[in-house]
Amino acid sequence: MRYPNSSKTFHKAISHANRGMVLEELINEANKYYLENDLALIYKKPTPIGIVNVKSDGTKKIITKAFFKEPSTLDYNGIYKGRYIEFDAKETKNKTSFPLANISKNQLSHIYAVNNHKGIVFLIISINQNFFLIDAKSIISFIENEKRKSIPLKYIETHGYKINQKGFIKINYLDELDKIIGG
Amino acid sequence: MRYPNSSKTFHKAISHANRGMVLEELINEANKYYLENDLALIYKKPTPIGIVNVKSDGTKKIITKAFFKEPSTLDYNGIYKGRYIEFDAKETKNKTSFPLANISKNQLSHIYAVNNHKGIVFLIISINQNFFLIDAKSIISFIENEKRKSIPLKYIETHGYKINQKGFIKINYLDELDKIIGG
Repeated sequence: MRYPNSSKTFHKAISHANRGMVLEELINEANKYYLENDLALIYKKPTPIGIVNVKSDGTKKIITKAFFKEPSTLDYNGIYKGRYIEFDAKETKNKTSFPLANISKNQLSHIYAVNNHKGIVFLIISINQNFFLIDAKSIISFIENEKRKSIPLKYIETHGYKINQKGFIKINYLDELDKIIGG
Repeated sequence: MRYPNSSKTFHKAISHANRGMVLEELINEANKYYLENDLALIYKKPTPIGIVNVKSDGTKKIITKAFFKEPSTLDYNGIYKGRYIEFDAKETKNKTSFPLANISKNQLSHIYAVNNHKGIVFLIISINQNFFLIDAKSIISFIENEKRKSIPLKYIETHGYKINQKGFIKINYLDELDKIIGG
């Protein structure tokens, strides 16, 4: 028996239309938990926009025209165990590899720069129904040693860390971050 | 002899209408210089907005209704000498003291939190035609030991550091930051 609004249909809709939003919400949920429990201070940066028109309705300002700008840094940053942390959340529909085209040129330069300045910089990659944390050092090493345009899942599994669920926190990435910071 | 667009008139216009913008631009200029010379990676966070309506003109998305949200963190953050850095730029028209009302309740909680997590957190205060860098530790100490609603300029001069110009960089705050990091 099939219901039009069955869970299966719902998940299918999510996986196509709102895939990016779901990953973002799961990370925001983790960050909120870390913040409330004073474990880490990590925030999503607001989406950069260019404001064209603003009007006032008497009590407050309303933006009536604006456009989205391309971010040149990663989406999340903050502090954990006294260390500078920065990362981005990336998703791919590919099941066996992560296309490097998902990282913009500006973001890649920024990843190099943060790494050079001794910040902790990484990606959280959603691939084939799993989440992985992979350190920028491993990504840089792949880019510099391989001529391939996609990182095989095998490489991510070997050099990254599979992120596990903890209670209701689906992407409990701090445990994996500890492995990078400690290592 | 007086010209209607003399430097004096121009400065008067700035000091009333665009005061906040000028300080922000001077800091952005310093950050750009630090970035280009690979001294520090410090960015202004985009202004947080709540998006209500977005339309597409065929090629790109245009935001047609949005409002400004109150930031709960400080405006600038990044990395310097491997350390997590966060600060805000504040201006006052007062010539002898800095009213604590300039720091929102959310920002103050955040200042405490970053300090507890061993980040470097401070304010750049524009007061009486000078710029000062004052460490959050000194601000917290003032708030906890004094019952006053404004920090006297004298306290800022004693516990903070006057920021000097370096070449065309009007707010060369890294030199003062070194004094906090080193101390």
